[in-house]
Amino acid sequence: MRLLTRKRLFWFVVAIGLYGAYSIAVASTGGESGEGGSVGHGGPVIAILIELVTILLAAKLGGDLFERFKAPAVLGELVIGIVLGNLTLIGIDALDPIKNDITLQVLAELGVIILLFQVGLESTVSEMMKVGLASFMVAIFGVITPFFLGWGVALWFLPEASVYVHLFIGATLTATSVGITARVLKDVGKITTREAKIILGAAVIDDILGLVILAVVTGVISAVNTGSDNGLSSGMILWIIAKAVLFIVGAVVVGQFLLPHFFKLGGRLRGQGVLLSFSLLVCFSLALVAGEIGLAPIVGAFAGGLILEEVHFRDFKGSGIHQLEELVHPIAVFLVPIFFVRMGMLVDLTTFANVDILGFAAILTLAAVVGKQACSLAIFDKRTNRIAIGLGMIPRGEVGLIFAGIGARLMIDGDPVISTGTYSAVVIMVILTTLVTPPALVASMRNTGGSRSEGGHSSESPA
Amino acid sequence: MRLLTRKRLFWFVVAIGLYGAYSIAVASTGGESGEGGSVGHGGPVIAILIELVTILLAAKLGGDLFERFKAPAVLGELVIGIVLGNLTLIGIDALDPIKNDITLQVLAELGVIILLFQVGLESTVSEMMKVGLASFMVAIFGVITPFFLGWGVALWFLPEASVYVHLFIGATLTATSVGITARVLKDVGKITTREAKIILGAAVIDDILGLVILAVVTGVISAVNTGSDNGLSSGMILWIIAKAVLFIVGAVVVGQFLLPHFFKLGGRLRGQGVLLSFSLLVCFSLALVAGEIGLAPIVGAFAGGLILEEVHFRDFKGSGIHQLEELVHPIAVFLVPIFFVRMGMLVDLTTFANVDILGFAAILTLAAVVGKQACSLAIFDKRTNRIAIGLGMIPRGEVGLIFAGIGARLMIDGDPVISTGTYSAVVIMVILTTLVTPPALVASMRNTGGSRSEGGHSSESPA
Repeated sequence: MRLLTRKRLFWFVVAIGLYGAYSIAVASTGGESGEGGSVGHGGPVIAILIELVTILLAAKLGGDLFERFKAPAVLGELVIGIVLGNLTLIGIDALDPIKNDITLQVLAELGVIILLFQVGLESTVSEMMKVGLASFMVAIFGVITPFFLGWGVALWFLPEASVYVHLFIGATLTATSVGITARVLKDVGKITTREAKIILGAAVIDDILGLVILAVVTGVISAVNTGSDNGLSSGMILWIIAKAVLFIVGAVVVGQFLLPHFFKLGGRLRGQGVLLSFSLLVCFSLALVAGEIGLAPIVGAFAGGLILEEVHFRDFKGSGIHQLEELVHPIAVFLVPIFFVRMGMLVDLTTFANVDILGFAAILTLAAVVGKQACSLAIFDKRTNRIAIGLGMIPRGEVGLIFAGIGARLMIDGDPVISTGTYSAVVIMVILTTLVTPPALVASMRNTGGSRSEGGHSSESPA
Repeated sequence: MRLLTRKRLFWFVVAIGLYGAYSIAVASTGGESGEGGSVGHGGPVIAILIELVTILLAAKLGGDLFERFKAPAVLGELVIGIVLGNLTLIGIDALDPIKNDITLQVLAELGVIILLFQVGLESTVSEMMKVGLASFMVAIFGVITPFFLGWGVALWFLPEASVYVHLFIGATLTATSVGITARVLKDVGKITTREAKIILGAAVIDDILGLVILAVVTGVISAVNTGSDNGLSSGMILWIIAKAVLFIVGAVVVGQFLLPHFFKLGGRLRGQGVLLSFSLLVCFSLALVAGEIGLAPIVGAFAGGLILEEVHFRDFKGSGIHQLEELVHPIAVFLVPIFFVRMGMLVDLTTFANVDILGFAAILTLAAVVGKQACSLAIFDKRTNRIAIGLGMIPRGEVGLIFAGIGARLMIDGDPVISTGTYSAVVIMVILTTLVTPPALVASMRNTGGSRSEGGHSSESPA
């Protein structure tokens, strides 16, 4: 019965896909479908509707398939994106326009901004202060070791590339995805264990460290590109670090003084949706400021989520940060899969035929996995399951993909920092690290027999 | 104290507005802001972030201001849009790029699709069957009379325009906005009265009649444009009516048979957000099909909302249509104001200097108000407050604007069906009808002393 259902579903997807392909083909040749004429109706919105239907359906099916195999849904969205984006290999190039649709790109980037905002909402500044030396050391070890391992691997495989390329590949290996980590821990019912708390605390710090590294690396490359300097001057690096740190610290401090006033005003405004609108304004404004000063917009969105705390909502009767998370969730359900499916679509499978890339990907994955095992060295408490912590830090998920995506758009000496081949290797690394974590973590946690989570409300999921 | 707060808020808007204007100006001259260089970061997403921050903040402030004067928030969004869109009059043209940003246009159109989906969700096919002769007669009277009055007014003021222009202006006067009507009734605490039920029932039928009329009128004009015929052949009109009716009836019937299977499959899918994703798929798919066969995408979105009923969600434990409305609500809070603020921005105030247009607008408004008073003639029950029903049917709101917007993009003999002047007149009519209703309705309902609403959960609001 279930098989029959899945089959039916499969054909439904195929039908939708073919329909979408046909429509895009008709649209791109400028033809008119329907003798009533669609003059004046739809226009650009018709194209985006086709793409949204295709992507949303694909995302849900891919997510379901991977969750059945105990893998995170985000991985399914990525893989089905890879499938859709490489239909050219079997002669279907009708879905190709999706890759270059600027409107869909903007929707996808709004999706990842909303996702990082969600991740930021999950933690508070004070929670991050409370995570002890354990979390902090785990985070530091979990950033430094993979960074240098990744640098080494890049140096080994791409000896002729510039130092900036090596740097960027190292950076790509640093950040643990707090979204995926939390999601996996919740999925295996271990979200309330001591190990889970250490991992989550470390992942939050890790995320910020990763974002600072991203800011530093892309900032340095941009500065080199604009020709303002010939290379890495320590003053320039310090200024970029200062800017990144100042932005986050500044956002926190300013947020502490301005946000209460902002939300007090919001609390007096009439009309519906003020809480959500004002929170989105914080998210978008900080993403905008981050982008304008040369940081990634997602850094701002994350900071925006971080500084929004319970206390800001006391003027909204009956509302709190928990309700805000529930309000942001549907927007994430709508927009976030667009980012991951589209990211998958940008993977060029023809580069996988290259044995060198496959080897590069394998070694890169090894560096990513081994590098994070250094985290367990930071734990001195014997009662803690160190192995589980090392395993829990493995998933790179969306942050790794974001790094790779940014690298693919960054140019150095006329070439992208992350070439198509390297991008494919990074995607393979992300897929493997995300794929290997759930079973390994489940096995490791089973030995310690951590207490089962009560399975409360879930609002942190990336999709 | 409150004045001080509003002042501070005002300066905050000004600051944001100026900042946005500056940024857009910098962006449009291709300059780079920030010496770190924003190469690779943001790109098109930075522009949309500026626009979203400007529009969301403006929408909330405009909505608040108008709610303080007992007017619907949607009116405030429109008016602040008019202000922002006409800053050119005082020499500020930095916000002009917003009007032509195709990505923002797509977001706005997704917003109105979501709004009509919401409106459709509020009613079910069976509820519409239950509304008696009273609602049906009110709807019929409320469509026919304004249509012919509007036609007459158009003929009087634009004697040289083609019959299709007259037809379209008549059509613009037909539809009562169920969103605004319900919102006003809820705002004045009369949502549970007998009059409210009749108005809401009629408004739902009215909406569909209006959408069919829109489909017929735009279909006829498109057919004329493609040169397939010289004018209105009755066979062509019948085919367009048949197509419109067939689409809605077909959606309902097909929905009855396919949706249960579709949502049964959805219920078996793992992963989060399946209920919302599958509902959005229904909305977007029907909007897409409607658009492809020459109808407006919003017709499909409305039908999608209409056919989604409680019974489809029994496979989603703990979920129902009520929860779906709560999930769609945040997406509407995000996207719907974009539509109304942008609509306001498209109003050209310089056309208001034309006395003829102002006269046209005044007579059009008179026709719109008087035309809907014919509704009261359809009520024979003496206990019912007929006047209140006639008054409650007055607001044209978003549907009138949508009609005008579509008309402005429709071409006939090389000219838009709704010229800039006529568009301004229609917008003035929409503003006046929406503005006049709340106080008049409140006054009329106070006389009958209808029972106060218990002020339950509100989910139908347009913003």
